[in-house]
Amino acid sequence: TPPTVLVLPGEGIGPEVVRVGRAVLEHVLDRAGLPATISEHAVGRPAYERTGQWLPDPVRDALDQAAAEPRGAVLFGATADEPIGELRSRYDLYANLRPARPLPALHAVSPLRPERLEGVDVLIVRELVSDVYYGRRRTGTDAGRRWAGQEMYYREDEVRRIVRCGLGHAEARRRHLTLVHKANAIPDVFGLWLDVLAEERAAYPHVDVQDRYADTMAMELVLRPADFDVIVTGNLFGDLLSEITGAVLGSLGLMPSASLSPTGFALYEPVGGTAPDIAGTGRANPLGTIGSVELMLRHTFGAPRWADRLAAAVALAVGLWRTPDIAGPGDKTCTTEEMGAAVCDA
Amino acid sequence: TPPTVLVLPGEGIGPEVVRVGRAVLEHVLDRAGLPATISEHAVGRPAYERTGQWLPDPVRDALDQAAAEPRGAVLFGATADEPIGELRSRYDLYANLRPARPLPALHAVSPLRPERLEGVDVLIVRELVSDVYYGRRRTGTDAGRRWAGQEMYYREDEVRRIVRCGLGHAEARRRHLTLVHKANAIPDVFGLWLDVLAEERAAYPHVDVQDRYADTMAMELVLRPADFDVIVTGNLFGDLLSEITGAVLGSLGLMPSASLSPTGFALYEPVGGTAPDIAGTGRANPLGTIGSVELMLRHTFGAPRWADRLAAAVALAVGLWRTPDIAGPGDKTCTTEEMGAAVCDA
Ligand SMILES: CC(C)[C@H](C(=O)O)[C@@H](O)C(=O)O
Ligand SMILES: CC(C)[C@H](C(=O)O)[C@@H](O)C(=O)O
Repeated sequence: TPPTVLVLPGEGIGPEVVRVGRAVLEHVLDRAGLPATISEHAVGRPAYERTGQWLPDPVRDALDQAAAEPRGAVLFGATADEPIGELRSRYDLYANLRPARPLPALHAVSPLRPERLEGVDVLIVRELVSDVYYGRRRTGTDAGRRWAGQEMYYREDEVRRIVRCGLGHAEARRRHLTLVHKANAIPDVFGLWLDVLAEERAAYPHVDVQDRYADTMAMELVLRPADFDVIVTGNLFGDLLSEITGAVLGSLGLMPSASLSPTGFALYEPVGGTAPDIAGTGRANPLGTIGSVELMLRHTFGAPRWADRLAAAVALAVGLWRTPDIAGPGDKTCTTEEMGAAVCDA
Repeated sequence: TPPTVLVLPGEGIGPEVVRVGRAVLEHVLDRAGLPATISEHAVGRPAYERTGQWLPDPVRDALDQAAAEPRGAVLFGATADEPIGELRSRYDLYANLRPARPLPALHAVSPLRPERLEGVDVLIVRELVSDVYYGRRRTGTDAGRRWAGQEMYYREDEVRRIVRCGLGHAEARRRHLTLVHKANAIPDVFGLWLDVLAEERAAYPHVDVQDRYADTMAMELVLRPADFDVIVTGNLFGDLLSEITGAVLGSLGLMPSASLSPTGFALYEPVGGTAPDIAGTGRANPLGTIGSVELMLRHTFGAPRWADRLAAAVALAVGLWRTPDIAGPGDKTCTTEEMGAAVCDA
């Protein structure tokens, strides 16, 4: 059976970037002669306003069905809050891949000096369905003063599968893995991560393994991003570190992501959020979404050569076309739609 | 009574940078005719090796006594782990101030393009005695699989005093405060922060207040550091964000910090760690420690004009002298001691 792709635009700039992402996907599938079943569904605020549910029951049913198929996928736009957390958790989309490689044409967009960008090619492998995000919550009052807690929590098997995922990607890339933790302040949780890494690395003798404190890593990603290959970490640190790599590229609008489950079901979404300040103005950058489509071609469609061609088309398009976030002082800017059309043309 | 200053070198590069910091402090106090009682004590690994205690009892007694005085202070070097966590907590050093302002002479050291550094002058106000760092810890096994948890936790009064501290500093500076949180994923804890901010801001009508998600903030600090004045946040996010500002300056070795308790007792330490790789080589940058001495002159000695003079001396010294971390390609480098001497000369 051909892949089933559910398109979930969400809100904010989500619908705008997803429209372009879908058009690019359909264009590539058409050229490649690859079949797929594509349908679109409202989730997030628009769904809530219409149905009272952030993830309406019929959409959940469609997702459940797609998740049960061998090659189901979601192309996600953006939501400020739910249902993204629920989707990640419900479909066990534990492995969040966030690659960052600056396009030479866009070096000038980065806040970093160009020489610091030479050779930058980082893949953040972020655990996505555990950590403090899904930890136990408590609130109360004590002598009239409120308090609140939420637990950072990991189970060994949750850690093991993401560490393996990181090691596997490192082996297939430049064979360098950095595990990011905070074992000096959160010793049990990250002691578990370090123990699991020590156990698993034996199976990947060619991968050079190191570890870093999250704070040190945050600094080094800005100072020396080219020193890193695969970075594997928990949900919270992965969230912050991937925004730093987005900043190193110069715009979060450039960053794609793939979230994979053990069964192969996958959700593809740009790392950037809903950007309510520019929603509806045509200023949103669709390249994070187009990059996510590239990841979908690779992981869900098993079409790496078409993924490579799409990446090449993007590299060509940005030579001429720029949304405002990646435009230099003298550059003419284009709209979200024009950027998508330029990629299809290329 | 004159201030009592306990000098705690610690380990790694701690002893080297603290020796210089102490010499600079004594030089300034001598010039200024300011009296002080200064004594030095081993803590951390050297203490542990000799006494079996990271914070030996006699040192704790000396600290307790200094903390009970109206103007007690600690000049701290670095330790990889304890006793820094214990010191912060025991003496309720809740307000950690981490200022970052790039020296024009050092713009070339930053990984950022020079134009992004124009006007950068950020003060991170980090809560230092609560958060996940001091949260409840649990470990166990479940069907043979280990698990571990540590709770992110805040009490209303802990939040209130640090939010007030941030607002106060903002009012005395450029009147712009950014509260950093992650209320979309950790809603109760950071909902409490946002509630307290909403209550407290009324007392500071001239301060322009905004809030940011921690991930967004990490990105914006790299892209647009000049857009921020005072950033107030919890212990964990403050840890990561201050390393990002260190990276923006170009070296963590440049960053000073002050940790203040409600009674005025204060601990001054460079933000950089023990840097075991360069310990003993004379390559360590003492400017983070010298900057911490500057903060001590300001907060503990109440000598802002001498603090300003010290800052001016640093700005002069770096025009000619550079430790390796801040040396450009053609620059001759100097040692930790030489940098200290240059600051005293200036
Ligand atoms: C929307 C938010 C909960 C989310 C997260 O923190 O995971 C976002 O920042 C992301 O990185 O996908
Ligand atoms: C040594 C470590 C526990 C400490 C922290 O995380 O607070 C350090 O990184 C710092 O920022 O002072």
